[in-house]
Parts: sequence; structure tokens; C-alpha cells
Amino acid sequence: MRDVIVAGIGETPMGRYPDRSLHDMIAEAGRAALIDAAVDPARLGAAYVGNFAGQPLTGQAHMGPLLAETLGIPHIPALRVEGACASGGLALYQAVQAIRHGMHDVVLVGGVEKMTHQTTAVVTEALTSAMDVELEAQSGLTFPGIFAMVANRYFHEHRDVSREMAQVAVNAHDNALLNPHAQLHKAIDVEKVLSAPRIADPFGLYDCSLVTDGAAFLVLTAADVDTGSTARRVRITGSGHGGDTLTLHGRESLTSFRATRQAAATAYEQAGVGPGDIDLAEVHDCFTITQIINTEDLGFFEPGRGGDAVAEGRTALRGDMPINTSGGLKAKGHPVGATGISQAIEVITQLRGDAGERQLATADIGLTHNLGGTAGTCVINIFEGES
Amino acid sequence: MRDVIVAGIGETPMGRYPDRSLHDMIAEAGRAALIDAAVDPARLGAAYVGNFAGQPLTGQAHMGPLLAETLGIPHIPALRVEGACASGGLALYQAVQAIRHGMHDVVLVGGVEKMTHQTTAVVTEALTSAMDVELEAQSGLTFPGIFAMVANRYFHEHRDVSREMAQVAVNAHDNALLNPHAQLHKAIDVEKVLSAPRIADPFGLYDCSLVTDGAAFLVLTAADVDTGSTARRVRITGSGHGGDTLTLHGRESLTSFRATRQAAATAYEQAGVGPGDIDLAEVHDCFTITQIINTEDLGFFEPGRGGDAVAEGRTALRGDMPINTSGGLKAKGHPVGATGISQAIEVITQLRGDAGERQLATADIGLTHNLGGTAGTCVINIFEGES
Repeated sequence: MRDVIVAGIGETPMGRYPDRSLHDMIAEAGRAALIDAAVDPARLGAAYVGNFAGQPLTGQAHMGPLLAETLGIPHIPALRVEGACASGGLALYQAVQAIRHGMHDVVLVGGVEKMTHQTTAVVTEALTSAMDVELEAQSGLTFPGIFAMVANRYFHEHRDVSREMAQVAVNAHDNALLNPHAQLHKAIDVEKVLSAPRIADPFGLYDCSLVTDGAAFLVLTAADVDTGSTARRVRITGSGHGGDTLTLHGRESLTSFRATRQAAATAYEQAGVGPGDIDLAEVHDCFTITQIINTEDLGFFEPGRGGDAVAEGRTALRGDMPINTSGGLKAKGHPVGATGISQAIEVITQLRGDAGERQLATADIGLTHNLGGTAGTCVINIFEGES
Repeated sequence: MRDVIVAGIGETPMGRYPDRSLHDMIAEAGRAALIDAAVDPARLGAAYVGNFAGQPLTGQAHMGPLLAETLGIPHIPALRVEGACASGGLALYQAVQAIRHGMHDVVLVGGVEKMTHQTTAVVTEALTSAMDVELEAQSGLTFPGIFAMVANRYFHEHRDVSREMAQVAVNAHDNALLNPHAQLHKAIDVEKVLSAPRIADPFGLYDCSLVTDGAAFLVLTAADVDTGSTARRVRITGSGHGGDTLTLHGRESLTSFRATRQAAATAYEQAGVGPGDIDLAEVHDCFTITQIINTEDLGFFEPGRGGDAVAEGRTALRGDMPINTSGGLKAKGHPVGATGISQAIEVITQLRGDAGERQLATADIGLTHNLGGTAGTCVINIFEGES
């Protein structure tokens, strides 16, 4: 298998953009990535785009040709990949495979979502399409409700980590204060999180990730492709895609996600590294409990001990296992189809040493973890900066 | 690149199934394909599913895990691919690449759509998501309107082929009479087509393809994988994906689709064959004019002469270039995300010699052609039966 290089990155700042179209956000982020890569667009062999809710929220599907036309490369074979909130990660996974297995030498991969112009009710219904509509949604479940069940089960199996969940949110807001691309720039504290309006017990408002507009793009190349980029070269050394039942009732465990463990095993093996080698990770914090579970499934901490690591400050920006230095889905934002790509951009920015005030002292190996639905889909990528 | 074998096929009959769920149709078609392949599902490396309108028509996305759970293989990495009416073809294209380039040895690929329970207005709006919503749909365009413009331009550049278009519909209905899986079993004649209620001039009712429920699945393997199937082995020897602008106004020509020409060039080159070697083709007859244009873009007939070939009976079941022996989108049906896979099933059934009353005398090399939107996406596959 061939090595994969991230030659260029580009994203819109994440936020609420009532006046920006899908075209507009794709143009900004896609062009930025192509310019950053300094690669002739004529060399592109294919384009992949992650999008989840274009149809219910904007009436737009068929985003492969839309992005290709918008970026002035209309004859590039382009397609949309969808796997709920992991749509961006899945598009990246497909793009990595295309380079790695010799289908193409240069590809463009992006994600985009436009969400904030719709009402909460419409957005909630659109997000519900990521669960099993016939078997789960008709019982009245929403995603806050599903993950609240997961949290309550976690409390039952281990202990009540409400306070540690609150600290997850505080860390996210703290990191986002240092990220110009983050949607929220607002300091909070644990007491504010714990006293916030209830969404679905044990979740309050600050336990839930954001509704966000945004786009994020990468240019990937084979290692032997010469580009004009002068940034530190970053390789994608491991890439895993794990699957599980769509429904929660089909699971053996509610407090550990098999799709994560499966994708992680693949990615670690390919990269020849283990959890202890990872300098930073962007993990899918759709809810605060999800981040804690993910860090356990990724092997960073023992099962049931993810909360302890948060309490001890280990996952904070200056901790020994910094999680979501970008601010994460909670505070950088969660433009669903773009999230998996935006996570990669944070890791690459850290590996390049370009993260400004939130730059880590050591950033050589990073990991992204992107979940879809109630973890029916998981994509994990491992990035290494060349020395 | 490795050779790709179609080890198993399975589909629901196409039709109107108000009482059948997505799960139900996936279970029938997916299980049939796995049984036909006689391959241990534990050997599956991945699953790909084409679906276009699950969100607007059924509220369901994230169909990778849905199909995996439904078929009892929940830990298979599974993902949805979307490219409008070419979603099935694109899923097949991705699956072919995965085998060909050594990512996996055995994969499952399917398509599914549930449409007929919705009103015509809802279906029309859902289909509209395949065009550029911001730039085209807001002008009031629908797909019959867009392709009617294409037909009128064709009449202007070449000649009025209304009567030949009517014959395309008649051929489709005639072939479908011999296909137990077809949605329509109803003989029509040219006068009936020409006098039908107008949809968008020059299209009458019978110039337009159907709204259909259905699912179709294939099992693909590398050539060296031993399966229990006793059917004639069919290889996929060429596979092309072409792209074009999403919008019609971005095109150089309205009467020839570059995405088709691009995908065809790739597929023919890979297979080492030309248009004259193809014994039968399933082409994307979303409207009657589209079939005529497609047969020209595929090189079966000269530009502007596709209508002549229809008038001369060459594209009929017993002609020298039989098109849509299944009945096509027009009469077998058009379950959008499943269409590209269902086309392949007709070609494979003919190559296996299992097509019953509609069996061709010579069926060794067949082609499928699947378009998305106004030909912003095209996927072409070439199938060869082993001797």
C-alpha cells in the first residue's frame, strides 16, 4: 500500500451563516485547500464529499457534481458519501483508500453542511434520519435521548460522572477561545454547565454539541507527487472504518462502541502505533459522555476511567493526552458532513505547528475519531508529521 | 488490477409496495444475492449501498449500518453512496474498485428506494434535489421540464423524433411484458404514446419513467475466491465514472452528455472492447429522448441517428443492438438508488442465459449505463460471461 500525504487543507470558520449558500462555503474551503496544496487541479483524479443533511435542510443532494462545478473542475468524477455524522470521515476514508491502493494519485475530499437557517424542530427531525427511523424514531427517541440513555447506563455500570462531563464541556469552550475558526468564543465553568437548562437527563444544554454551518476540505496525494506546499508534510499512516448495528437495542454494550474499537484496531495496526503514541486526538464529542466513552474505546484510558482522566486535567490543552484542542463538536462546532474533515484539519494544523495560541509543545502523531449515529459507523485516521 | 466476478444477484420485483419497509426490501434482495453467491457472509469485507431519496421520502439516512444489521452482518463496514439517479451505479463502481485494487476480496453492493407511498408533489420535490437547487430549481424547473428542453434542442439540432421516442416507450413495455420483475405489464402502441396526456412538451405520460419501490443487490468477489455458485461466471471487465457540471447551463452541448462519453471511454478501454462488441445494454431511459441520446453517446449509433435505429427496430428485443431488454426505467421501473444495480442484474441474467422468454440468442458482453441528475454523473460497467 502506498503512503498518503495531506498536501493541502482549507476550511471556513465554523458558525451561523444565514446568508451563505452551500456553493459559497464549498468555494471558500475547497479553493483554500487547493491553494494550500499548490497542486494543479488538472491532476485531480476524483473528488469525494461528505454531506449528511443536504436534502432535509437545503433540498440539495448530488453534491459531487455541485462541488466539482463550483470549484471549476466539472469533469472530475465526484461523489457524495453519507454515514450520518461520520459522513466527512467516511469521505476521507474513501479518499485515503483511493490513493493508498493506486486508484488515483491526487484527490480532493471535503465535507459541507448548512444547518442553522432551519428551526430546531426541522434540524432535530433531519438528525433523526441517522437512527433507525422505523424501529427507534417512532418510539419518540431523539439523539439527546439516546445518548442520555447511554450516559445513565454508564452511571449504572461505573459511577456518576456528571461533574466530569461538565469539565469536558469547559475544556471544549476553553480550547475554542484559542481557535479563530470556532463557532463559540465563550468561557464557561462547571457550575454553569451543571445548572444549565435540562435537555435530556443527565444532559443540560452544555452537554450537547452545536448546530453549525461550515465546510472543510483536504487535498491528498501519493507520497511521490511533487506539490508546491512548503508546510510540514503530514502522512496518513492508518485508516479504519468500523460498523455496528444501526439500532441501540442490537448492542452487546451501551457504554462501549464496537465500531470505535474495530476502526481503532485497524488504524493502530496499519500505523504501527498504539494509544500511548498519540500526542493529540480529535474525538467525536456529540455529547459530553460520548467523549469520555470514546477515549476509553480508543485505549487512552481504562474502561470506566475516562472521567477520572478528565478530572485530573489529562485531556485539557496542557494535559498529557490533549483531546479536542480545536474546541471539538461542542465549541468549534458540528457541521455534520464536514466534521470528520474539520477534525483532520485541527490535527494537521497542530502537526504543522500552525495552531497559534493553542499549539501543543509535542505534536507528531495525531488521531481523528468520527462517529455516525449511535456509533453505527466509526472512522479513525492517524496522522504523522514527517521529521 | 484484479478481475472482478459477480458471484451473486438478487432483487425484489419492482413495483408499488405501500406495506413494505426499506428493511423488508433490503432483506429480500440482499439475502437472495448472498444465497445466490453461496458465499459465507463472514467473508464480506465491506458493503456499499446506493440510495438517493431516503431522507425526503422515508426520513431514513445512514443506510450502511441499516443494511448490515438487517442482513445479520452488523459488523461489516458499510456506507451509503449518493449520486442522484446514479447512486446505485456509483455504489457498484466503488465496490468494483475495492475488489479490483485489492482492498477487499468479497463485497456486497446494493441499492434501495421506497417512493410510491408519497404524493407526486413530494416525490417531485425529492427528485429536484438532484439538480442545482439554488441555480435551477428556484426557476421552477423539474426534471421533465429539463429533459423536455433537451428534447426540443435535439429536435432543433437534428430532427423531430417524437415518433421514435414513442417507439422507445413501446419497446420498453413490450420487453417488460416478458419480465416477471417489471412494474408494468401492459402493451401500448405508438398512437397511444403520442396521444397521451402532456407532461412537458414534447413529453407525454409514456415518455417518462416510473416511480418505483424496490431493492437490488450483488455479491462481488475477486476472481480467485471460490464460491458455491453454479451459474455462468460473469466478469466486470470495465468500469467508468464520468462527471459534468450539475447545471444544464454550464454545458457545451444539451444533446450529448460528456459524463457518458467520459465513463464509456474508460470502460471500453479497460475492457478492451468497443461499442460494436456489446451484445446488449441497459441504458438510463429516465425519458425516451434520454435513451436515444445515450445510445449515441455510447457509440452504438452516430450522433443524430439514434432515432433511426429505433425506427428500424435495431434496439428492440430481436434487433441487432437490443436496448433495455428488462423494460428499462420506463417499464421495469426506476427505484432510484437501486436502478444502477437492477440494470446490472438484467445484463447478468441475460449473460447467464436465465432471462426466460426475453432471453437473447447471443449474450456474452453486456453494458450498463446509469445517469444521475441531468447527466452530472454517469457510471458505465461492462460485463462479460466466461466461455
